[in-house]
Amino acid sequence: MNKNIGLDEQARKLFEGKNFAFVATVNRDGSPQVTPVWVDTDGKYIIVNTAMGRVKQTNTKRDPRVAVAIFDQTNPYNMVTIKGKVVDQLKGSSAEQHIDKMAKKYTGQERYPNRKPGEQRVLLKIEPERIAGMGR
Amino acid sequence: MNKNIGLDEQARKLFEGKNFAFVATVNRDGSPQVTPVWVDTDGKYIIVNTAMGRVKQTNTKRDPRVAVAIFDQTNPYNMVTIKGKVVDQLKGSSAEQHIDKMAKKYTGQERYPNRKPGEQRVLLKIEPERIAGMGR
Repeated sequence: MNKNIGLDEQARKLFEGKNFAFVATVNRDGSPQVTPVWVDTDGKYIIVNTAMGRVKQTNTKRDPRVAVAIFDQTNPYNMVTIKGKVVDQLKGSSAEQHIDKMAKKYTGQERYPNRKPGEQRVLLKIEPERIAGMGR
Repeated sequence: MNKNIGLDEQARKLFEGKNFAFVATVNRDGSPQVTPVWVDTDGKYIIVNTAMGRVKQTNTKRDPRVAVAIFDQTNPYNMVTIKGKVVDQLKGSSAEQHIDKMAKKYTGQERYPNRKPGEQRVLLKIEPERIAGMGR
């Protein structure tokens, strides 16, 4: 059964826009961790492109629960916070191509300029479970 | 022994500036929670003004560990993330006056306009333990 509630109009626009999101995960010792990310959506899932071995990748492999906050770069009072979980981690060519799409969206460059040798990109597919908004 | 590492120059400027911060805490069920906040600093501690009973207040009463991200509203690539803990929660007149200071800083208004009847403001005093920066 698909419980995915998808993104409402306000949230979808925020994730489609050139806005930063802040993703919180839980560390092995139970403490919280938060990082700023570039972000994408297909309207149903929130997509975060990270690299294998980074804290948010290993944390969500162990415990998929995340919280995400995003706001409009031009109006920070237009924001939503989302509770959800990482339902899939996708490596390979889709993830490698997707980071170029993100670089294009956020910087205008055709290719992501900060690739490190041996780095494996990975898509974290986040299913939203609860959405709360401000400035609606 | 005071382990407080204080804030470095980049972090201090970001917290003194009219910038939003994102504070992550851990819920009772172990899932992460993140909220956008107005923020203040005395250079040593990060100060967040919230209200008694709100999730981040009750969460940090139970588990004081937090993660904080803040970025420059005019240049989102100038940002820091901080791992720390809430070492004190202060209620009373200092907290009630402080929310007006925050309203002044962020909105230019002399008094905080969103006070709710019976609301008790509280200062979360966050001791930074580790600071990581981007755009340094």
